[in-house]
Amino acid sequence: MAERVRDGETGIIRRYFAPLAAGVDGAYDLTDDAGRIRPASGQDVVLTTDVIVGGVHFLEAASPQDVGYKALAVNVSDLCAKGADPALYLISLALPAKPEAAWLDGLSEGFAEAQAEFGCGLLGGDTVRTPGPVVISVTAAGFVPRGRMVHRFGAREGDEVYVTGTIGDAALALALLQGRGGMVADKLTASQSDYLKQRYWRPRPRTDSISLVRDHASACMDISDGLAGDFAKMCAASGTGGTINVADVPLSEAAAAWTNEEPARIEDVLAGGDDYELLMTVRQDSRHTFERDCATAGVQVTCIGYISAPGDGVNVLDKTGKPLHYVRRSYDHF
Amino acid sequence: MAERVRDGETGIIRRYFAPLAAGVDGAYDLTDDAGRIRPASGQDVVLTTDVIVGGVHFLEAASPQDVGYKALAVNVSDLCAKGADPALYLISLALPAKPEAAWLDGLSEGFAEAQAEFGCGLLGGDTVRTPGPVVISVTAAGFVPRGRMVHRFGAREGDEVYVTGTIGDAALALALLQGRGGMVADKLTASQSDYLKQRYWRPRPRTDSISLVRDHASACMDISDGLAGDFAKMCAASGTGGTINVADVPLSEAAAAWTNEEPARIEDVLAGGDDYELLMTVRQDSRHTFERDCATAGVQVTCIGYISAPGDGVNVLDKTGKPLHYVRRSYDHF
Repeated sequence: MAERVRDGETGIIRRYFAPLAAGVDGAYDLTDDAGRIRPASGQDVVLTTDVIVGGVHFLEAASPQDVGYKALAVNVSDLCAKGADPALYLISLALPAKPEAAWLDGLSEGFAEAQAEFGCGLLGGDTVRTPGPVVISVTAAGFVPRGRMVHRFGAREGDEVYVTGTIGDAALALALLQGRGGMVADKLTASQSDYLKQRYWRPRPRTDSISLVRDHASACMDISDGLAGDFAKMCAASGTGGTINVADVPLSEAAAAWTNEEPARIEDVLAGGDDYELLMTVRQDSRHTFERDCATAGVQVTCIGYISAPGDGVNVLDKTGKPLHYVRRSYDHF
Repeated sequence: MAERVRDGETGIIRRYFAPLAAGVDGAYDLTDDAGRIRPASGQDVVLTTDVIVGGVHFLEAASPQDVGYKALAVNVSDLCAKGADPALYLISLALPAKPEAAWLDGLSEGFAEAQAEFGCGLLGGDTVRTPGPVVISVTAAGFVPRGRMVHRFGAREGDEVYVTGTIGDAALALALLQGRGGMVADKLTASQSDYLKQRYWRPRPRTDSISLVRDHASACMDISDGLAGDFAKMCAASGTGGTINVADVPLSEAAAAWTNEEPARIEDVLAGGDDYELLMTVRQDSRHTFERDCATAGVQVTCIGYISAPGDGVNVLDKTGKPLHYVRRSYDHF
C-alpha cells in the first residue's frame, strides 16, 4: 500500500512546503501565521490568484510534478502579463484525508522546479482536508515600478495586436490526451505529438517578456481561456472593437501540420486555452522599437490584427477576409 | 426550483463580486487579471491565507451570509494577530456547477458585511467549478509599519501570557449545534445558548486590538485551533516552555454556567477552536502599560500564565496546580 501522510498538518508543512520557503525573506520558514512583503521604495505590488481543481483543470492522469508546476505557472503568467516581476506566492491546499506521501512529494517537487525557473519563493499557505477532489489555490505577488502595471483595458483604436510564441498547441494536446484527436492525429510524428503534449503539461509563463510588456504594451493579458474569447474580453474591457486575422496567428510546426490536414481544427486553436502565451496591444508608433526589442530579447512575437472603434465589434477573419464562425469562444466554467 | 446561475464566470463576478470591489484602489472593478497594492512609504505588507471547505469548516446548515462573513473573518483575525491593519483581500472560489443564485447572493452579502466591519475591500479573485464541496480560499493583505509585524515566535522566558475576550464559546456552541451538548446543555437558558451560537456563527476578529498587539505583544497568534494546542505551538515556535492556569482562563457567563455543571467540558473549552480571540505574550515590565492601554481601548484581556525555560515543557494546570490530562490538544485536519 502507498504510504499515507501520518504526521498532521504541521508535519505536511514542514516536510513538503517549508523547503520551498527556505531563505525567503518574510516567510519565516512557515513558522508564523502570515508572511511579510517589503517592496522596495517606488514599487507597487501586483497580486493575482488562480485555482485549479483535480479532474477539472488537470487530468486525473497528470503527474503531481506537473500539477504543482502548473499551479504556480498559471499565476506567474498573470504577473508577466501585468509587467510585474514574480517574487512570492502562497499556496492554499484542500487535500483528501490522508494524502499519499508520494503525491505530495511530487507536488512539492513541481512547485520547486517552477519557483526556481520563475525566480520566486513560497511565502505562506494553508492546508486543509476536503472530501472532494484536490483544490489548489495559489496567490502570487510581483513587483512593478510605481504606476507601471499594464492593464487588460488599455487598448486604443489603431493599436496593433500581438501574441507571443505559438498558439493552440496545448488545446491540440488536450484533444490528443482526451482521445478527441481523430484520424489526423494518428498521422502526427512522435516528435510532433510529444511537442504538443509538453506544451500542455508544462505551460511556460512568459517571464522572458515582462520588461517588453512593461515598456511597450498598451494592454496585455495572458491567453488562458482561448485567443478568440480572450481578445473579445480585452476589447470589451478597453471599450473598443478589434480584428484578428486567423491566417496571421502563429502556429508551431506540429499545429500547422495538423491544421493543414484538418482545417476545422483551427477552432481548437482559437478557442482552447492553456498555452499561457501573451496577448498584447502596442501603439502604432511604438511598433518598430517593440519588434526590435523583442528580437534583441529573443522573444517571438507576431502581429495578428488591430484595434478599432467600438462600433466595429470583435472580428475573427479567415484567409479570405470573411468572419469565421465557430461554436465555442472560450472556456467557461459555468 | 431555485434559480441557478446562468451567465457564466464573468456574470458571477459582475453580479456578486464586483460590488465588493467598488471604489477599491487597485481593484479596477475586477476587470483586470490582477490587483495592485500600493503601500505607503515605510509600510510592510502582511499576507495570510485560509481555506474553508463546505461540510468541514462550516456546517451544511450554515447560512451563506455566515459562510462569507467567516471566510473573511478568519483571515482578518490572522492580520490582527500580526498587528497589521486589514486593507485588501482576494477570493478563490471553487463552486459546484450551476450554483444557486440565492446562495451566491447570501455569500456576497456576508463578505460585504464583513469587509465593512473590518475596513477592507476586495482586490481580486478567481471562480471555478468543482465536482466536490464548495471551497473558499481567501488571501488577505494588511499594512504594518516597517519591521513592526508581530510574530508567533517572539515569546521569551518570563513573559506573561494573555488572551483577549472569553475562551471556548464557539467550541461549546459547536457541541450544541452537532447534538453533542448532552443533558447539561438542555439546562442552558435560551439567551445563554443563543449567545454561544452567535459566537460560533459570527467570529469577530480582534480589529479592536491591532494597535495593542503592535505596541505591546512580544508574540501573538489568533486562537483558531484551540487554546492549549495553539499555546503549545507558540512555545515551540519561540523555543520556550510555558504554563497556563486553567482557573484563570476567562469564560463567558454561558460557558461558566455550563462548565460549573459539567466540569469535563473544560476540554472543549481548551481544545476547541473557532473563537478567534488572540493569544499573546507581554514582557513583564510592559504589563502595567499594556493593561492600562487595554482598559482605555475597552478590550478585555486576562493574564492566564507565563513563559518559562524550554526544559519546563508546556503545562496546562488545573485549580490545584496539577497537570490537566485531556485527549485532544487541538484541531488537526490529518
